[in-house]
Amino acid sequence: MKITGTFIDEISHDIPHQNWGRAEWDRDFEHMKAIGIDTVIMIRSGYRRFITYPSAWLQHNMRCYAPPVDLVEMFLQLSEKHGMTFYFGLYDSGSYWDTGNMQHEIDANRYVIDEVWQRYGHYKSFGGWYLSMEISRKTKGAARAFRILGEQCKGISNNLPTFISPWIDGKKAVMAASSALTREDAVSLREHEQEWDEIFHEIHTAVDAVAFQDGHIDYNELEDFFSVNKMLADKYAMQCWTNAESFDRDMPIKFLPIKFEKLRLKLEAARKAGYDKAITFEFSHFMSPQSAYLQAGHLYNRYKEYTLTLK
Amino acid sequence: MKITGTFIDEISHDIPHQNWGRAEWDRDFEHMKAIGIDTVIMIRSGYRRFITYPSAWLQHNMRCYAPPVDLVEMFLQLSEKHGMTFYFGLYDSGSYWDTGNMQHEIDANRYVIDEVWQRYGHYKSFGGWYLSMEISRKTKGAARAFRILGEQCKGISNNLPTFISPWIDGKKAVMAASSALTREDAVSLREHEQEWDEIFHEIHTAVDAVAFQDGHIDYNELEDFFSVNKMLADKYAMQCWTNAESFDRDMPIKFLPIKFEKLRLKLEAARKAGYDKAITFEFSHFMSPQSAYLQAGHLYNRYKEYTLTLK
Amino acid sequence: MKITGTFIDEISHDIPHQNWGRAEWDRDFEHMKAIGIDTVIMIRSGYRRFITYPSAWLQHNMRCYAPPVDLVEMFLQLSEKHGMTFYFGLYDSGSYWDTGNMQHEIDANRYVIDEVWQRYGHYKSFGGWYLSMEISRKTKGAARAFRILGEQCKGISNNLPTFISPWIDGKKAVMAASSALTREDAVSLREHEQEWDEIFHEIHTAVDAVAFQDGHIDYNELEDFFSVNKMLADKYAMQCWTNAESFDRDMPIKFLPIKFEKLRLKLEAARKAGYDKAITFEFSHFMSPQSAYLQAGHLYNRYKEYTLTLK
Repeated sequence: MKITGTFIDEISHDIPHQNWGRAEWDRDFEHMKAIGIDTVIMIRSGYRRFITYPSAWLQHNMRCYAPPVDLVEMFLQLSEKHGMTFYFGLYDSGSYWDTGNMQHEIDANRYVIDEVWQRYGHYKSFGGWYLSMEISRKTKGAARAFRILGEQCKGISNNLPTFISPWIDGKKAVMAASSALTREDAVSLREHEQEWDEIFHEIHTAVDAVAFQDGHIDYNELEDFFSVNKMLADKYAMQCWTNAESFDRDMPIKFLPIKFEKLRLKLEAARKAGYDKAITFEFSHFMSPQSAYLQAGHLYNRYKEYTLTLK
Repeated sequence: MKITGTFIDEISHDIPHQNWGRAEWDRDFEHMKAIGIDTVIMIRSGYRRFITYPSAWLQHNMRCYAPPVDLVEMFLQLSEKHGMTFYFGLYDSGSYWDTGNMQHEIDANRYVIDEVWQRYGHYKSFGGWYLSMEISRKTKGAARAFRILGEQCKGISNNLPTFISPWIDGKKAVMAASSALTREDAVSLREHEQEWDEIFHEIHTAVDAVAFQDGHIDYNELEDFFSVNKMLADKYAMQCWTNAESFDRDMPIKFLPIKFEKLRLKLEAARKAGYDKAITFEFSHFMSPQSAYLQAGHLYNRYKEYTLTLK
Repeated sequence: MKITGTFIDEISHDIPHQNWGRAEWDRDFEHMKAIGIDTVIMIRSGYRRFITYPSAWLQHNMRCYAPPVDLVEMFLQLSEKHGMTFYFGLYDSGSYWDTGNMQHEIDANRYVIDEVWQRYGHYKSFGGWYLSMEISRKTKGAARAFRILGEQCKGISNNLPTFISPWIDGKKAVMAASSALTREDAVSLREHEQEWDEIFHEIHTAVDAVAFQDGHIDYNELEDFFSVNKMLADKYAMQCWTNAESFDRDMPIKFLPIKFEKLRLKLEAARKAGYDKAITFEFSHFMSPQSAYLQAGHLYNRYKEYTLTLK
């Protein structure tokens, strides 16, 4: 299964910044293209006070800092240049992480979506929306928030596709800033199925694809969880993508590029489960030949060799 | 606001060593010079048993290890070659960190200062002293220690300048070896002002400049704390510098180069507060084109582009 | 004291993978050779479900994943090409780490040893066995397990040498995934001597060399512990090696290359104690000019300069 999409982690929660300018990004899109990536997803347009484009609304209402460059414009232009589809990730106020309440995200993004579509909707490369709130379980109000935001995105943009990328509440679902690697009280397969059945039931009319993060369960659990995910997606006529994490969750340094063998196991599991598309979090730190983590360039080479063996 | 000084983190508490030889350091001074750095500060001449120059006194009395090279001599010579001013950082016995008592630092440095001035005082590049003990709040005996050590440094060296670089006891003031990124019980602005008023009152005759570390508070708190710092420095006729940290405190990997946008916010805040000088901790790991962290080279480029936009 | 051997950390517990292919490994063996390394030790042939060679037995009985390449074959061939001796590290089921019981390791390796010798025993470079179970203290059943496995290895291979690499239960013996750097309840020198006397007594007929890891005690404790180790090894006619760790245990990032001065202190201590051989954990991440950690290449240069000063 080939990776055809990648997140762009600007702005990041937990991955140190590479301080690239336009030249480096231009070159990175080329590297992506060369291994078959046709979709880039800007993971969020802002996080708390840091934002990716000079949003008047966010600066005024959320007291966000004026950004040094307009990343949204740059990514849209580079996408156009390299023939790629750009997904816009919604604003994350941080409030949901702090309080568990998504009302702030709904309120803020109501304006962000309008503003962004008005500023950037004319770009041919503007191809979809990423509902950037990450959840792992049935959370009060989360499904409703996805539905409302998804409807608004689709409504304004002549039905451009939307997707979410939740995580599975598995044994490796620990905070990045915790030193632990695993925990005891992971979700069971049955609970996972029940809770996501309810969530999909509510969101499927407004969310076109779900791309579960693949790194929170053990490699031998991939098959079971992926089958359930695919079955549920089929039931609600949603696309089933995998978010193949290209960083390693099993190491004390949080985070460096993943061992290729592990990435391969995860991609193979997605292929066997009949998934529709593979995206990754994320190319530029963990798979790019120009990453500050030199292991990433070697992963790029191993991955390329692997894709040559695929039919 | 341009960065015109940098610490040299030999010997380090918490930043892994780059294992550079003289050739790499020579080249790094060139890189520094190219962006306007005219001051290098060796952060400490020793930490516990590791030392930067073959001090007979420290080897005999503190049982320090014989160092493989004389870094003090090397840095003084390179400073001379590149036309830079070298500040010598005092010895840190580790005792203050363990016990909160600075008497050991006073006792040991009484000899270190004499020895160092005798060995290296003739270098034209020997331009000042850094009182390397780091404090964040009014600590019993700390102000007195700064005053005594500052007086001794100035007394022996015909009044060469001295400075300190304390940290603000803010929300990000957590131990480097802790996995946490923030804490709850941060100092208030008013407490900060009161405590540092008392400290400055005691030290201002022996300490010429104070360079608060700028990374322990949130970006939106910079303005308030910087105003207080400047006001206090003015009150006691001290110079107000900023120690602009070029590493990122918000990430699980402790520590990699900072996102340029954050560095810019901090430098802008120092400029607005009317600070006298900006130094950084530190160039060679976090901003140098030859750093082992390749993000640093990109930060160097982004910073250079930024300085071109200034006046 | 020169380093003449290195572990190869495939498969790793805690060091992120570099994703090298055969070309990179070939080059790395050259780099090793250039500084006098003549021995490579594959640290373990498998860990839990990840394995280094396509073992029918492990895939069937331990449900291990099919490996993407046969690393054992590759390392044996590269050893042959570069004139090096290859040590094979036994399989680690993970069960000992979880339960403290070594019976699983004995049971699994009974088959692994047979299988491996049959597949690879004909390689001229196959020069020894590494009993990969790591212990630090007298642990119920551990010495017996070493004896049984050592006897089996030697029995099948016409008495090829075996060795172990335990750690000293010192102040830096903390879990890699813990954020702490040190702990309080370290072993005393006397306890260390008593416990290892008993262990050596049981294993010395089946284990030819012991290579204590040198990183869990403080630098000023090296002399005392190394003397005891050498004395015990002499008493039982075993070889006394040092496993000179080339990564830094004193830093919050776990782990990056060590400061050369520290490595030198440890090698000097081993020389003074009359040790027989120095190996390192490990060259490819922490000392190699092509390591993803660029500090490693500088360590390589500093180490090379140092070896030129040795007689």
